Amino acid sequence: MNATLQTNLEILKKLQIGTYNKDFLLTWEHSDDEIKAVLLVAECLSEMHKLGLSYRAFDTGLAISIFRDKSTRTRFSFASAANAVGLGLSDLDEEKSQIAHGETVRETANMISFLTEVIGIRDDIFLGEGNRYMREVGAAVEDGFKKNVLHQRPSIINLQCDIDHPTQTLADLVHLKTYFGGLEKLRGKKIAMTWAYSPSYGKPLSVPQGIIGLMTRMGMKVSLAYPKGYELIPEVVELAKKNAAKYQGSFEIVDTMEAAFTGADIVYPKSWAPYQVMQRRTALLQKGDKPGLSALEKECLANNAQHQAWECDDAKMKLTANGNALYMHCLPADISDVSCARGEVSKTVFDHARIETYKQAGFKPFVISALILLTRLQNPVAKLDEMIRRNVMRK
Amino acid sequence: MNATLQTNLEILKKLQIGTYNKDFLLTWEHSDDEIKAVLLVAECLSEMHKLGLSYRAFDTGLAISIFRDKSTRTRFSFASAANAVGLGLSDLDEEKSQIAHGETVRETANMISFLTEVIGIRDDIFLGEGNRYMREVGAAVEDGFKKNVLHQRPSIINLQCDIDHPTQTLADLVHLKTYFGGLEKLRGKKIAMTWAYSPSYGKPLSVPQGIIGLMTRMGMKVSLAYPKGYELIPEVVELAKKNAAKYQGSFEIVDTMEAAFTGADIVYPKSWAPYQVMQRRTALLQKGDKPGLSALEKECLANNAQHQAWECDDAKMKLTANGNALYMHCLPADISDVSCARGEVSKTVFDHARIETYKQAGFKPFVISALILLTRLQNPVAKLDEMIRRNVMRK
Amino acid sequence: MNATLQTNLEILKKLQIGTYNKDFLLTWEHSDDEIKAVLLVAECLSEMHKLGLSYRAFDTGLAISIFRDKSTRTRFSFASAANAVGLGLSDLDEEKSQIAHGETVRETANMISFLTEVIGIRDDIFLGEGNRYMREVGAAVEDGFKKNVLHQRPSIINLQCDIDHPTQTLADLVHLKTYFGGLEKLRGKKIAMTWAYSPSYGKPLSVPQGIIGLMTRMGMKVSLAYPKGYELIPEVVELAKKNAAKYQGSFEIVDTMEAAFTGADIVYPKSWAPYQVMQRRTALLQKGDKPGLSALEKECLANNAQHQAWECDDAKMKLTANGNALYMHCLPADISDVSCARGEVSKTVFDHARIETYKQAGFKPFVISALILLTRLQNPVAKLDEMIRRNVMRK
Repeated sequence: MNATLQTNLEILKKLQIGTYNKDFLLTWEHSDDEIKAVLLVAECLSEMHKLGLSYRAFDTGLAISIFRDKSTRTRFSFASAANAVGLGLSDLDEEKSQIAHGETVRETANMISFLTEVIGIRDDIFLGEGNRYMREVGAAVEDGFKKNVLHQRPSIINLQCDIDHPTQTLADLVHLKTYFGGLEKLRGKKIAMTWAYSPSYGKPLSVPQGIIGLMTRMGMKVSLAYPKGYELIPEVVELAKKNAAKYQGSFEIVDTMEAAFTGADIVYPKSWAPYQVMQRRTALLQKGDKPGLSALEKECLANNAQHQAWECDDAKMKLTANGNALYMHCLPADISDVSCARGEVSKTVFDHARIETYKQAGFKPFVISALILLTRLQNPVAKLDEMIRRNVMRK
Repeated sequence: MNATLQTNLEILKKLQIGTYNKDFLLTWEHSDDEIKAVLLVAECLSEMHKLGLSYRAFDTGLAISIFRDKSTRTRFSFASAANAVGLGLSDLDEEKSQIAHGETVRETANMISFLTEVIGIRDDIFLGEGNRYMREVGAAVEDGFKKNVLHQRPSIINLQCDIDHPTQTLADLVHLKTYFGGLEKLRGKKIAMTWAYSPSYGKPLSVPQGIIGLMTRMGMKVSLAYPKGYELIPEVVELAKKNAAKYQGSFEIVDTMEAAFTGADIVYPKSWAPYQVMQRRTALLQKGDKPGLSALEKECLANNAQHQAWECDDAKMKLTANGNALYMHCLPADISDVSCARGEVSKTVFDHARIETYKQAGFKPFVISALILLTRLQNPVAKLDEMIRRNVMRK
Repeated sequence: MNATLQTNLEILKKLQIGTYNKDFLLTWEHSDDEIKAVLLVAECLSEMHKLGLSYRAFDTGLAISIFRDKSTRTRFSFASAANAVGLGLSDLDEEKSQIAHGETVRETANMISFLTEVIGIRDDIFLGEGNRYMREVGAAVEDGFKKNVLHQRPSIINLQCDIDHPTQTLADLVHLKTYFGGLEKLRGKKIAMTWAYSPSYGKPLSVPQGIIGLMTRMGMKVSLAYPKGYELIPEVVELAKKNAAKYQGSFEIVDTMEAAFTGADIVYPKSWAPYQVMQRRTALLQKGDKPGLSALEKECLANNAQHQAWECDDAKMKLTANGNALYMHCLPADISDVSCARGEVSKTVFDHARIETYKQAGFKPFVISALILLTRLQNPVAKLDEMIRRNVMRK
């Protein structure tokens, strides 16, 4: 057996993993062992894929995706992750379905779940809504299972909500582990999670929140930077602080990109909308106040425009460790002079970093497959072991 | 082997089943043995699913769905039923396809069928059109097969038309069989299939027609109730009368919900549009008479509004056998004070019945899988036997 | 083993096939051996399908389709071809994806390709754009593979571009081979590829160009006919002339349907837009000149209307060899008095030819499956041999 696979399997066998039949909604609801298990399984699957080995674990079964926001990469990550483990994909398109007719979430959740293994949901537009909706679906299928409506309880996987984006940040972490040569190598490394200017409005908070919530558990020095007014959800900031203390890393909030970048080993410059604006937006949406929404968008874009200097450019990159920090982005980035006149990152910085950002994205399908195996199989490590040993080629 | 599976297999082996390479469009076009076979196979598949067993019968092959009306549950039932037996799903979206360019049904039917096992069609909007369209598709692929265009003739499965809704009523029958403990226990039971008030317009006639066409074959006492003017298609009413005589049950039409409910063991209160209105609507649609259609909708909603008392509430439920009839609905129901101010059923009645209606719906994917096996396999019972014995787990 | 399969396998084993990990964009970029291999593999798969044998070659993997124009038959051909070899289908709907947000082709191509075997693209609307776009996607995944972003390089399959329509013309060639009893029987046969009148505007040039580019390689007498002003791309016409010389057939351009039909063994009357008009259209589209586009459409339809006599009718069919040429069409045809008042073909001619055109279309799913096997497998002939010998039934 391939050395990477053997090493990972041995570590996996010693972990306490309690993810069977559970949802995966926020990384901080899962133990360190479970986080490690996701990374190790994802790495095994990536290695198997490289070797041409099949890791099909299901003979039949459905994976359902519910996308309440546009998406290319997450959509295809989920589609390919489901296909690779042997599940058929069905998209619940709310335009096509009777949800538009006022069906309750409880009913729909059960109706789509009779033969379903996993439901991936992306719902990141409304602060206070996305994660809540996922839990509502989870509670509905839990209830359906307990009352013998469902033969099994499907798992909900968060494909991005208003709070966290676990498939992204876990893929980011696999990338960091691979790039730096192990989780232990991340201890003491400085990561700059910073706001960046974008000409667009209303980008979700899930990535910066997910990053400070997860990376503080790796003993990293997490530096969060944003212009005054672009705060994140206070609870997640509190969590990051506690993590930093518990895992002997650090967490700071600074108000310039330069301060965060100085000495950083990793930079993650990315735009987001201020927490308070997103709250006002949700309230206006619930009231159906269109003029109010227009006014808010105008106000917000005007605010953004005051911070055009928050661009990741060569000068700022020079401040990082050896002037050579790893640049990360969840893609697509707003690239100055490419996708917009002025954006999150300069063309030269992005051109230099592009291939690494593609590799970063490339871990997502394996992370999602890993989450499916970990939440759907009673003994995922034994199954992985068996799939490696059976040596079935994909073609 | 599990006792349920063994018992069902033994009964199945004695039935005369002639469904191979046929369509499944109306329950009354199929023999009693064939109806029993659908129920028994569906029960076996449900049991296998509960046990974690795979019933994948196809290595490859396509199941195509054509939905000419919105749907969540039927869409997902078909998707999961196709996936469970091993077929890939492809949706013919008429917006996306060249059907919009005036292709004839005959040509399209052949073009999508070269590697297709089954075509599921939902077309329930226009009276006189849906079932006719399904037969046109069936005739086209029959002709294509006979003339060596197609290597095999796919089967058409009616996922709801203007006349019948066989996958729904057969799932309803599996539910009744399970709930009461056997088909023979249904003999003499009273079922009230009644109209109910809804604030929406144009609901299809397929469920009440399908129910009176099928349940009269079980020796049940079928009581159909509706306000004057809400007649069903006369041919189906005639059929129900003949069935009642032949199978020694009974069939009556009454004009109050109360009359139907009195002494009923099962109640199925559900709104539908009057047959004559649907006829006028089809004619207006064919002429493209928009003002006429608006006027008809107004007239029809005004008529509906006169019958708001046709709500299934606690008082009416008290009239049923032991005040405890089984409440059925094909979902989604119009629930008073939940999905509308006033609807088909009161909140308290529905809350009490909800879980049973979910279970009722839960048989549909297994019924559809059963129809696929019965229409596509030369010897479906032998295949089922083999799939039980091979003991392959789904994961 | 079945004789057809055995014969084809023996021929296949002697061919030089270099299609592994390559794209399939234009038939004339592939050697005679490779063209023969596509036909032979497609015929084997069709035969296996007829025998009920599975030719599933992949355990898991994705086939992605990108359709930038409406399509029924190509969409379902690709879906069924992918399913039959064991791949899951995912459609990149550009409306749903972030391509609408200005993502670059390079990034998207990589993002959808992490676990992808094949990307089928239809992009035939803009002259100079479709084939270029396919090559851009191909270059992007080539680069991604070389830089370790992708574990494998997916193959791009042209499902119709502005230059060629290889899956159509190769299916046409399998049809001709089958109809006349072998490729060698085509030598010296006359095929009339002629323009025909249609009341619609802007039909692509890919079919006539693909036909003259491919059939001149079979030693056929290719007669291209169109009214003055309906020229094809000059480079493809040059290619056809060179092919005719090299393969000892002939190529001529005539200006009446009658001249082309006279003595023809095969006729392929089909409308297209003039090359020069398509060029002007692309320029207007790029400028976003809507009035200019409207004016061009009007002008073009007026031009078309002058050539209503270019209809394939009984009188013209009488000019063909024994008055009995094989009528071909890629479907859907504009049939006079059926899909339009006056079109490409008269009702009587089409009615007589319909079944043959359906059979012609029926080879496309097998051609696409053949292209997938030939581009994705290191040794496709050995795999085909193994799949025939393993004798797994589809159901």
